[in-house]
Amino acid sequence: MQVLRGNIVHAPALGELEALEHGFIVLDDDGTIVSVCPTLPEEYAALPVVDYGDSLVMQSFADMHLHAPQYPMLGMGMDLPLLEWLNTYTFVTEARFSDNDYARRIYKKLAADLIRNGTTRVVMFSSLHTDATLILMEELERAGVTGYVGKVNMDRNCEGLLETTEESKRETLRWLDACDRFKYVKPILTPRFTPACTDELMEWLGKLAEERGLYVQSHLSENQSEIAWVRELHPDCRQYWETYDKYGLWKDHTVMAHCVHSDARECAAMRDANVVVAHCAGSNINLCSGVSPIRKMLREGIWVTLGSDIAGGAALPMYRVATMSIRASKIKRIESSWREEFLTVPEGYYLATSSGHRYFGAKDGFAVGDKLHAIVVSDADFTEAARPLSVSERFERAMYMMSKDSIVSVWSEGRKVL
Amino acid sequence: MQVLRGNIVHAPALGELEALEHGFIVLDDDGTIVSVCPTLPEEYAALPVVDYGDSLVMQSFADMHLHAPQYPMLGMGMDLPLLEWLNTYTFVTEARFSDNDYARRIYKKLAADLIRNGTTRVVMFSSLHTDATLILMEELERAGVTGYVGKVNMDRNCEGLLETTEESKRETLRWLDACDRFKYVKPILTPRFTPACTDELMEWLGKLAEERGLYVQSHLSENQSEIAWVRELHPDCRQYWETYDKYGLWKDHTVMAHCVHSDARECAAMRDANVVVAHCAGSNINLCSGVSPIRKMLREGIWVTLGSDIAGGAALPMYRVATMSIRASKIKRIESSWREEFLTVPEGYYLATSSGHRYFGAKDGFAVGDKLHAIVVSDADFTEAARPLSVSERFERAMYMMSKDSIVSVWSEGRKVL
Repeated sequence: MQVLRGNIVHAPALGELEALEHGFIVLDDDGTIVSVCPTLPEEYAALPVVDYGDSLVMQSFADMHLHAPQYPMLGMGMDLPLLEWLNTYTFVTEARFSDNDYARRIYKKLAADLIRNGTTRVVMFSSLHTDATLILMEELERAGVTGYVGKVNMDRNCEGLLETTEESKRETLRWLDACDRFKYVKPILTPRFTPACTDELMEWLGKLAEERGLYVQSHLSENQSEIAWVRELHPDCRQYWETYDKYGLWKDHTVMAHCVHSDARECAAMRDANVVVAHCAGSNINLCSGVSPIRKMLREGIWVTLGSDIAGGAALPMYRVATMSIRASKIKRIESSWREEFLTVPEGYYLATSSGHRYFGAKDGFAVGDKLHAIVVSDADFTEAARPLSVSERFERAMYMMSKDSIVSVWSEGRKVL
Repeated sequence: MQVLRGNIVHAPALGELEALEHGFIVLDDDGTIVSVCPTLPEEYAALPVVDYGDSLVMQSFADMHLHAPQYPMLGMGMDLPLLEWLNTYTFVTEARFSDNDYARRIYKKLAADLIRNGTTRVVMFSSLHTDATLILMEELERAGVTGYVGKVNMDRNCEGLLETTEESKRETLRWLDACDRFKYVKPILTPRFTPACTDELMEWLGKLAEERGLYVQSHLSENQSEIAWVRELHPDCRQYWETYDKYGLWKDHTVMAHCVHSDARECAAMRDANVVVAHCAGSNINLCSGVSPIRKMLREGIWVTLGSDIAGGAALPMYRVATMSIRASKIKRIESSWREEFLTVPEGYYLATSSGHRYFGAKDGFAVGDKLHAIVVSDADFTEAARPLSVSERFERAMYMMSKDSIVSVWSEGRKVL
């Protein structure tokens, strides 16, 4: 057992922030949290202490939507709309991942950059390539990133990057068989989005999800032309989400990225099925898709999490994604003539941490019984404030100001990985 | 004389980008640009060459609106609206600058951080303190930051930080007298904003501006409650801008920050007087002020530049400000159902560089006869792309991805300052 000491800041509920100045986290042998306390109880007094001094000990981040093979094109093609951007940049970049050596180099860097930036849990798209997907899972596991990764299924409508329905099925099974060896990174079924998958493939994936008890991730209602396209492809479905529901892919823990244009009926379907929204504010603005009504969704009891959406999003760090989500909510406030509330900093932090960690079975905040997922942030290099700051104020400033250089240590699944 | 070699990328006009792969900039003894060329003419072949290899040589940035004494509160108080934020955080922080030692520490860091992030020209607010303002000017000049700095005038309506009208006049004159010693940093008259200045002070400042041929900076139409307040204070003025015009402060080269809610009439007044808009996208969103219709202003021939607006803005680097401005323009596109165009990356770059440099008498882009203001950006550490990139593509990626670590050299006023 051991004890971590520092200024502990966590989000035990949406909008709630608990700050313990020079507090303690007591860990079991396997990194499970035994106690979070302002002073160290007598019974733990003899344990070894990892002293983080005056640094902030914060929850690590969960990135609930990103495309690993788009990491090489970060910050590129930002002047194009979604469907053109997919055809000009994205599919060409992803096609490169048929080269295992290239995949190894890129994924090793991605995994390291995730940890350096404090992201310890992910729900991630790979490309359609089975081998590169396994390399990705290996590199994540090695670096200490945990979560779910999906080999992408796409058997129609994608220029220059396509598999046949038969290949898609066969490779999915080959991939799933090879996943047993991973301890911290698990497979998730990943139909790219409705326009990219034939009905036959969707049906097969739905059955597979049920048979093997697998989670599902995909995209939903990102922009208007995409929605119109889905309507053409599935005239029998009234709304986009029903094209997933029809094949058993709309279910508990299904992660749907974007949901920018989801109306009341689509939102109700999310809540009823316990579908998870991965809100990707930066990406939605970069591609002019729209601004998702997150605050409204939260009010309606929908499970909202955040995603960097690399490379529609141009920033991997989830602290940047969190502040961009706050800005997006402020846009909604402006648009509503200040009637709609914006996301506060503690709320943005909750969505970027607790709300995502729940996907993996964790409780909110630093909770007893959960494996520790934490980052240690040093703000010693930040500009000297005009007066002494409280731990909560320092936390708020850190959310806007931190960089990978401020993250001095990272804990993932109870293990110190940086 | 000397020669710089590298991948040169500059913005000779709004929306135009010139990229010279392994091109050359020839400099005179005093750092004046003599030639910008794809191959080195015979006559310069014997000159010493500073070889930046495969790095990008880009224009440096001009930050046309920021508050130096708010640097210590960067990223703080972001959950408050403008007027409350001013009273709770801003005035308290600025009041600290009565302490010259504190001012020295903070301004030394600010000046260094500006250069490290590639900002070589500024139009900047100090606080009301004369001594701290002179310290600020000293530190900027020492670090290589050039431009205009204003001792702030504020003699009413500011909680906890106020000067009498008499003090304001006397200190302004004392400050102006002391400014002669600076070579690269010049004074600019700075009534904080209409609500913070009595009519007597405004009138005096207007006369002073005329007598001494000084430029003016202030704030305009940032948010609705501010506009309503100005209307109450000046029932004789139909619009906010007229409260400046009335006293001779609305004139050629007057920099007006924000202009979020300026209507057609106010915009026409800007164009007619050659008033400069300092657009502060991040700040305007952070404080829920609104999103300024920049694209429309540009179409109408208004002079638009960009400002970080530290600390309403939470990012000092102008490359971050440029991409935030692009995002803000995309919000306008979304709001207009894709009828309004957004700012492209080359346009965002132009606004963050050339458009600002013009304020100081420079021509657009790297122009013959101008002193060199440049940054050298290494993208060697960026993730390996899926295919070889053109210089223009690398430039675009750099605008989204660069950090202070990628800026390996900075030239200001013809001198290498980093």
